[in-house]
Amino acid sequence: MNNKEIPYKIYLDENELPKQWYNVRADMKNKPAPLINPATHQPCTIDELSHVFCTELAKQELDDTTPYIDIPQEILDFYKMYRPSPLVRAYCLEKALGTPAKIYYKFEGNNTSGSHKLNSAIAQAYYAKKQGLKGVTTETGAGQWGTALSMACAYLGLDCQVYMVKVSYEQKPFRREVMRTYGANVTPSPSMTTNVGRKINAEFPGTNGSLGCAISEAVEAATSQEGYRYVLGSVLSQVLLHQSVIGLESKAAMDKYGIKPDMIIGCAGGGSNLGGLISPFMGEKLRGEADYEFIAVEPASCPSLTRGTFGYDFCDTGAVCPLAKMYTLGSTFMPSPNHAGGLRYHGMSSVLSQLYHDGFMTARSVEQTSVFEAAEKFARTEGILPAPESSHAIKVAIDEALKCKETGEEKTILFGLTGTGYFDMYAYQKYNDGEMSDYIPTDEEIAKSVAKMPKVD
Amino acid sequence: MNNKEIPYKIYLDENELPKQWYNVRADMKNKPAPLINPATHQPCTIDELSHVFCTELAKQELDDTTPYIDIPQEILDFYKMYRPSPLVRAYCLEKALGTPAKIYYKFEGNNTSGSHKLNSAIAQAYYAKKQGLKGVTTETGAGQWGTALSMACAYLGLDCQVYMVKVSYEQKPFRREVMRTYGANVTPSPSMTTNVGRKINAEFPGTNGSLGCAISEAVEAATSQEGYRYVLGSVLSQVLLHQSVIGLESKAAMDKYGIKPDMIIGCAGGGSNLGGLISPFMGEKLRGEADYEFIAVEPASCPSLTRGTFGYDFCDTGAVCPLAKMYTLGSTFMPSPNHAGGLRYHGMSSVLSQLYHDGFMTARSVEQTSVFEAAEKFARTEGILPAPESSHAIKVAIDEALKCKETGEEKTILFGLTGTGYFDMYAYQKYNDGEMSDYIPTDEEIAKSVAKMPKVD
Repeated sequence: MNNKEIPYKIYLDENELPKQWYNVRADMKNKPAPLINPATHQPCTIDELSHVFCTELAKQELDDTTPYIDIPQEILDFYKMYRPSPLVRAYCLEKALGTPAKIYYKFEGNNTSGSHKLNSAIAQAYYAKKQGLKGVTTETGAGQWGTALSMACAYLGLDCQVYMVKVSYEQKPFRREVMRTYGANVTPSPSMTTNVGRKINAEFPGTNGSLGCAISEAVEAATSQEGYRYVLGSVLSQVLLHQSVIGLESKAAMDKYGIKPDMIIGCAGGGSNLGGLISPFMGEKLRGEADYEFIAVEPASCPSLTRGTFGYDFCDTGAVCPLAKMYTLGSTFMPSPNHAGGLRYHGMSSVLSQLYHDGFMTARSVEQTSVFEAAEKFARTEGILPAPESSHAIKVAIDEALKCKETGEEKTILFGLTGTGYFDMYAYQKYNDGEMSDYIPTDEEIAKSVAKMPKVD
Repeated sequence: MNNKEIPYKIYLDENELPKQWYNVRADMKNKPAPLINPATHQPCTIDELSHVFCTELAKQELDDTTPYIDIPQEILDFYKMYRPSPLVRAYCLEKALGTPAKIYYKFEGNNTSGSHKLNSAIAQAYYAKKQGLKGVTTETGAGQWGTALSMACAYLGLDCQVYMVKVSYEQKPFRREVMRTYGANVTPSPSMTTNVGRKINAEFPGTNGSLGCAISEAVEAATSQEGYRYVLGSVLSQVLLHQSVIGLESKAAMDKYGIKPDMIIGCAGGGSNLGGLISPFMGEKLRGEADYEFIAVEPASCPSLTRGTFGYDFCDTGAVCPLAKMYTLGSTFMPSPNHAGGLRYHGMSSVLSQLYHDGFMTARSVEQTSVFEAAEKFARTEGILPAPESSHAIKVAIDEALKCKETGEEKTILFGLTGTGYFDMYAYQKYNDGEMSDYIPTDEEIAKSVAKMPKVD
């Protein structure tokens, strides 16, 4: 098909939206290792998981054999409010780079949460509502996940309690106010409303909080209130399942125009966006039907895939959650304070970790100054101000397109543009003022936190 | 056609995008009165306007006879980056209200400027570039227009100098940083870089600035630099022309599904969004081909149509621009400091003023607390966090839908959702904290500023 016929933006019709999520685990020969109970070192049972998660979500978490799972009609209806998201041909960026490569991006930022997080938030809130729960609890750092969950809960009339890392609560008052506008109860963490919060406040007076601490408070709040469960925005296999809608839509839009990507690029923190984007393409690769190059892009300051260890580790810094087998820097690893964006998670989705371990995908780490350079170039040519997280994928997409310029190859590149940077202007300001710096952890630093990983046979 | 067949969002295909703007003045029997030179009280000539505006834009400003004007290909290409914008059926809002009314909104907020302003920004920047200029100057208050112009200039490689009202520059650092990311030079106004700025700083040390002052500085900067012109984001007839793309797309999308709106509602500050949305529908009404009810919604704290005077007045507080005949509160009118959103302009587009004067449209003023109530309801049901400006239209759309609930009428309501509120969270915070208040100016206050209007025969 002639390029000229490909529009700037491909929108699927509403009747072409995916009606099932795709569970890539079903096509994996080497399944991701099971979550294990830190006390018994035995695989977590559905009963154990159901104390923390909604029952249906606990089932999804453990299901590694069913390839397609129906999306309930109520979730489909919600998806229609902000989906399909556009698959964009980056004509302007291609022209600015002078590359023969064809660049596409799937843009997930056109909703008020500002990211793809809403795809899983509505699913998790829906199952909580269906189970007759009163509400859900969660933590949020940068605030995208908390916003998405607030929106989903407002829509369903579900109570939403968000523990927001104190430093973000104070430095990102606007994110906080968006959540409040959606009726969420936002508490700076560590708070005085939970045992773990009071304990941490007593031990470290004046602490700014951390994601690990906020997770611990949210889990305690869920398990100590009647009718509440805890929900999480990334890392878990259920989240990758819900996010498969990104890849399914991308593939349907590309198929419509006979486009086959040579490489698919996504940023990777906990893995929810990358896992969702690549899932259906990876399925084809796993089944031997097609081949694609998959590239996970992570920050050089938090390089779990490229420099981490593959083994069982805690999912949270507070060590209250199950152990997962994954590429990890150790749950006590803290990215340098100069790190601006998200993607600060110490580990990586078990699904993606296994696929990476088995050679089905590659990974690259990039430094943040170069990421913001790519973000600026993208904003000025494609019009969209990208989130710092998403800009990791932009950086590598531009690198690959420039390689094509040298070699003359007309590769087709697809990357995930997970969100917008409207609430990240502190970081942009640093970049605009020339005050952004890079940091790469030393081998010793990583070895130190890896050494603290739990010992599991 | 059965409602069930109407999707949540109607997107036109790229080949269905309007290729011409529609100039509603061509179909008006009573043309809007001409801009006049404040010194001579004679209609402004194209030569006079061309000192301040690009020549092509000066021509468009004076052209009240050509009904359709071709959109240059370069502008069409830029439009394709973020247009078509969706026409959304507000199924969720209808359900929440329990109304038999059918509510549609045209959503212009899915681009980084966060509003419809980009439609005219790219047009004005394009003509400046085509004329071989180095750059453009403008003022911005809340920052949507400045952001839009920065984006357009970055795309075309044009210098962009924005005078930002000092209080906004300091209180809205994020808006400022978005503009800087797009390469704009943002100066807090009043500055020490212009004569008028230095004069005002000397006269009022420590002043927070005003839009009137920023306009004066931007005009001086344009006329004192070789290769620069001044551009403006609303009020002017050229801006309404460019914004007609909103109405043309809305009408095309509705025609596709055989939908005919009974009433069309838009917020009105200077009139750019409302004028653009209603233009093609108003054309039909003016030509006697169809009838529609048009409602302009303005803040009770700045009620130019509902409580202003129809006469010649300065377009700017600084009184350096031509005089326009319009509904006005007097160019010295200042909305109460408790007014949160935009729509603070003292006057109204000459085109809309004439149409209102001739009875082709109606107007309503609403108080801001009720506007934020409507905004919250909309956000929680339709998912999109609306701009305070846009929420004026939401408020009246909800009021009308609730009237239908009482009467049982199945009216079809179309309103303009001009933008998102991501950079307006200070105002939302006030509302969330129950600290928002209303203010309605007294008749005496309005009479005082109206008395200062220039005397024109």
